[in-house]
Amino acid sequence: MSKLIFQEDREMDVIAIGRIGIDLNPNEYNRPLEETESFTRTVGGSPANIAVATSRYGIKTGFIGRIADDAFGRYICQYFKLKNIDTNGLVIDNKHHKTGLAFVEIKNPKESNIIMYRSEAVDLHLNMEEIKEEYIKNAKALVVSGTALAASPSREAVFLALKYANKHNTVTFFDVDYRPYTWNSLKETSLYCSMAAQMCDVIIGTREEFDVLEGVDIPGNQDDDITANYWLNHRSKLVIVKRGKDGSTAYLKNRERIVGEVFPVQPLKTQGAGDAFAGGVISSLIKGKNVKEAMKYGAGAAAIVVQENSCSEAMPTEEEITKFIEEYKIRRD
Amino acid sequence: MSKLIFQEDREMDVIAIGRIGIDLNPNEYNRPLEETESFTRTVGGSPANIAVATSRYGIKTGFIGRIADDAFGRYICQYFKLKNIDTNGLVIDNKHHKTGLAFVEIKNPKESNIIMYRSEAVDLHLNMEEIKEEYIKNAKALVVSGTALAASPSREAVFLALKYANKHNTVTFFDVDYRPYTWNSLKETSLYCSMAAQMCDVIIGTREEFDVLEGVDIPGNQDDDITANYWLNHRSKLVIVKRGKDGSTAYLKNRERIVGEVFPVQPLKTQGAGDAFAGGVISSLIKGKNVKEAMKYGAGAAAIVVQENSCSEAMPTEEEITKFIEEYKIRRD
Amino acid sequence: MSKLIFQEDREMDVIAIGRIGIDLNPNEYNRPLEETESFTRTVGGSPANIAVATSRYGIKTGFIGRIADDAFGRYICQYFKLKNIDTNGLVIDNKHHKTGLAFVEIKNPKESNIIMYRSEAVDLHLNMEEIKEEYIKNAKALVVSGTALAASPSREAVFLALKYANKHNTVTFFDVDYRPYTWNSLKETSLYCSMAAQMCDVIIGTREEFDVLEGVDIPGNQDDDITANYWLNHRSKLVIVKRGKDGSTAYLKNRERIVGEVFPVQPLKTQGAGDAFAGGVISSLIKGKNVKEAMKYGAGAAAIVVQENSCSEAMPTEEEITKFIEEYKIRRD
Amino acid sequence: MSKLIFQEDREMDVIAIGRIGIDLNPNEYNRPLEETESFTRTVGGSPANIAVATSRYGIKTGFIGRIADDAFGRYICQYFKLKNIDTNGLVIDNKHHKTGLAFVEIKNPKESNIIMYRSEAVDLHLNMEEIKEEYIKNAKALVVSGTALAASPSREAVFLALKYANKHNTVTFFDVDYRPYTWNSLKETSLYCSMAAQMCDVIIGTREEFDVLEGVDIPGNQDDDITANYWLNHRSKLVIVKRGKDGSTAYLKNRERIVGEVFPVQPLKTQGAGDAFAGGVISSLIKGKNVKEAMKYGAGAAAIVVQENSCSEAMPTEEEITKFIEEYKIRRD
Repeated sequence: MSKLIFQEDREMDVIAIGRIGIDLNPNEYNRPLEETESFTRTVGGSPANIAVATSRYGIKTGFIGRIADDAFGRYICQYFKLKNIDTNGLVIDNKHHKTGLAFVEIKNPKESNIIMYRSEAVDLHLNMEEIKEEYIKNAKALVVSGTALAASPSREAVFLALKYANKHNTVTFFDVDYRPYTWNSLKETSLYCSMAAQMCDVIIGTREEFDVLEGVDIPGNQDDDITANYWLNHRSKLVIVKRGKDGSTAYLKNRERIVGEVFPVQPLKTQGAGDAFAGGVISSLIKGKNVKEAMKYGAGAAAIVVQENSCSEAMPTEEEITKFIEEYKIRRD
Repeated sequence: MSKLIFQEDREMDVIAIGRIGIDLNPNEYNRPLEETESFTRTVGGSPANIAVATSRYGIKTGFIGRIADDAFGRYICQYFKLKNIDTNGLVIDNKHHKTGLAFVEIKNPKESNIIMYRSEAVDLHLNMEEIKEEYIKNAKALVVSGTALAASPSREAVFLALKYANKHNTVTFFDVDYRPYTWNSLKETSLYCSMAAQMCDVIIGTREEFDVLEGVDIPGNQDDDITANYWLNHRSKLVIVKRGKDGSTAYLKNRERIVGEVFPVQPLKTQGAGDAFAGGVISSLIKGKNVKEAMKYGAGAAAIVVQENSCSEAMPTEEEITKFIEEYKIRRD
Repeated sequence: MSKLIFQEDREMDVIAIGRIGIDLNPNEYNRPLEETESFTRTVGGSPANIAVATSRYGIKTGFIGRIADDAFGRYICQYFKLKNIDTNGLVIDNKHHKTGLAFVEIKNPKESNIIMYRSEAVDLHLNMEEIKEEYIKNAKALVVSGTALAASPSREAVFLALKYANKHNTVTFFDVDYRPYTWNSLKETSLYCSMAAQMCDVIIGTREEFDVLEGVDIPGNQDDDITANYWLNHRSKLVIVKRGKDGSTAYLKNRERIVGEVFPVQPLKTQGAGDAFAGGVISSLIKGKNVKEAMKYGAGAAAIVVQENSCSEAMPTEEEITKFIEEYKIRRD
Repeated sequence: MSKLIFQEDREMDVIAIGRIGIDLNPNEYNRPLEETESFTRTVGGSPANIAVATSRYGIKTGFIGRIADDAFGRYICQYFKLKNIDTNGLVIDNKHHKTGLAFVEIKNPKESNIIMYRSEAVDLHLNMEEIKEEYIKNAKALVVSGTALAASPSREAVFLALKYANKHNTVTFFDVDYRPYTWNSLKETSLYCSMAAQMCDVIIGTREEFDVLEGVDIPGNQDDDITANYWLNHRSKLVIVKRGKDGSTAYLKNRERIVGEVFPVQPLKTQGAGDAFAGGVISSLIKGKNVKEAMKYGAGAAAIVVQENSCSEAMPTEEEITKFIEEYKIRRD
């Protein structure tokens, strides 16, 4: 039986925690960033994108995060409300920290860099006092992304949230989301991400991200089976190794191995694919789909998002994913 | 005789030092920043704007500053070259610092706020090692703006540049350019700005800026005559108190008092007016105009810039200012 | 069977990790510190004291720590060699950090304060690169004290050491050693100490220290039985709650409860009692004594140390403890 | 006329500002610090020593500084009161900063090192708010030592004090007191020390200290005459270059050059000689002695102090210096 079990009597379906930023997407494509003249702003950050994805999918979604006390903070809050995301877990910063920014370059479909503004970013100032045990206790699932562990006090806040989730049987999802620029060293990343992973029921990452995650525990390993075995021997019940357009593989506690479907499309950019996939998988699992179905919906969501010039704005509903998959198969066959 | 004397045998006319940033100007006006959807990037920062202004005016201009090792740094460097500014004083940062940003809100002609990204901004990492005595020795004038004194190591770099300028009779201009967000306290601002002002031949500021500048030396003073008297008793030869559309007043060593002309226009925004004014005044003085003429050209440049949706991009040439003033007078009379 | 099982084929008996400092003990007693005129320096710091205690006891002891590149660092290294402690795990700092200091006040036997010099203390700069997996793999036991978790990078180094110890079945001892001055908040202390405690086979602390340790997990608890139950449900095999001269209680995995003997003496000071106790208990357990015996030897060592004006220097050998206990009982009976 | 002119109507004779620390002097001499077992604590820090020297000399002395809220802070305050130093300028720190420490090694009369504890030292946290204009206005002289300029906010506090002193004709003394360990770079030291020196009426330093002081202004200079000329062309009225037992040379505004007497003795250590000299010179000048006399009393005080195992405690009264000089000459002749 490859379904995850959730505490069904919870008010909230899923809470994401951590990074919310502003993406500045280029209005002109296929040119380097130094020649990009104008930008459109959207909400970004891996857990924020996942929250938009799950809410769009039709899952009751909340967010725990710290936002700036300025126009960008207000915009994020308004946007979350518009997307039907519960904002009771948002805290307004009182120390003049600024929203993290990502200026996106779309040089060509395969090459797209980012300039990140993360120095003293407001999301990394989320602190332990702002983690409410009740809020987490009332949710079926908690989604953590690795970036939130990169610096204090956000690191401590996330570990506390994981402790509360474990205490109350809130299912914990860990999206490795490795972003080198906020971390001091690879070894520190491995240490804290592996400590978080050991508190999580589901771990999702690319092969490269698992290499980072395992740097201390099983250094040098690049074998998915060894990876799955290692983490499933700890708390994890489900491990998903993403391989982009080559598809992803899920491993279950009983060592069942499920290869996900893929829907190759012509992408505009690659950003957002991982968040769309995670959002689709998590929503589907919470809605009671089995792992194979969940992976298909995740892949469908990712295929939709990479064709658009935004991450959060492009997140599809469950119906849109269903329709995309059906039409895709008709086209393909 | 109300002309400033410059060392005429210098290769460079003027060098500005300090802040270069990126302005992100709204593509949609008359709305709050949280509802502004897209932005156009231009080069910004008070001394950078002044450098563009003097170079556009026709004065040989250089810049001493630290730029990021990324697409924004490359853009700034290319832009300066395009505007004919000497970039030999630009240093490429090697520590992942980012370009300072200013997101501009144009709510209405009178109200326009800014979100500043200045945490660990690359310009504030300019350091003493990067100040070349020869470069300053070869210039007629050095322009310092107060913001560069707000944090170390930029603070020390600017004091060193002022020392070299004083040593070699390079005329020193101080534009107070008070920006509260980078400073620890008003008292610290007063202290360091007044120490810099005492090393400068010309001081330019609004009445509010002189209030800040004098916080330690003559606390509570709001009288322009006392201001002028105080600074002219030190090193200064020329003190200009700006009063926006009410015009500005210049005070000379011999206590002559010159009220500048104004050219009231319907502004789109107010940002950039001060830099255009300073650029016009400095260029004119270096070109040998007297103080009264210089103030007129400064006011003309400011009137042109406030009607445009950019600071640096809108800076006019000497001919454009002359033409604007002539046409303005014809219209007026 | 109340004995701990160690991997008997290991070269080293026990490795302590973390804080090594200099204690400055007053040469004049029974006066406030402001009137204390001269001081004698000895090696201090909880894990350093424990290492001296175990080595004096006759157990092969090593230490992992960072020492200053100055006369105090050299003194510590010489002292450890003199006490027969393996120094291969000591790293000499190369960044001018200084040895932590503790100026001890002995106002009266019950009241003795300390002025701690811990700002940028060299021991807290121990980092992950300095933790050698082989060194830990070759030891029967690892002793961690909570203070080393108070700041980065020492915090990460200790978590890494615990990971290696768990991986190689090196028995892990956690001495809570709560020192408020190095921590940011009580909640942060609770978080990281509880995360470390969950990686440890034996937890030792006073009731007050368990209150801190449990701040996040079982807030408000002050009941030793609940404490024992909670931690024994995790990895721990042995939990010891110290109650000073009222004796200590050990709890085993099988929920056996052992109350330790005490040897009341007239103390000169109280510092060092806890470290002597921990050293005696750990050494005895490694030597194969059962928990009851180990607690007796710990209490004996503590009784000896509180009568002397030093912590490290006063640590007794196994024979001295045996002799003290025998004589004490003769005197008492 | 080689006397300095002071505002005679001032309540206080002299105020020193900046560093007050604790010296820990070895109780055993002629051995390296790692073998030194016990230490006696005294008050230390260049300006504190000078304040003790001037007060002992019989001059009404005050001190502006920040002291720790612990036993060492209380000891310093009590000691100052005992030495008749006005403590109204002392501020008790409220942020847990600790008193700076100096552990002194007396290896042999010529070689004696120091381990300095200066990380976050409380004296460097003196801030602008704690500088009272009235207090400085009521004093004949202000003594600044360079170390207080090494870090913020003490740097800003001292510059503010110098501004107030200049405003109210309080004679300003600058003792370069170069201590490399608190500074970021030699160039930064040169910059800030030279900026302070330009606000001072009297500059005192060793040849090596003038080399540092002049690093930006006259780099490479090692000639006392050029040194004197340079600074006397600025604000300074008196420049004293110290050359230890080879005597010192004073330069006056009128370019008069006065070589000071020396009293060679067998020293126990060299620390404190400079402070004793400065204290003697400053006190003598304030008491109305001419520069030649003042230099003699400074040299006498230094000769007395180097024979004792303390700096502050060994500072002599005017009578003791007079007596020492008389007896020295009798012995010599």
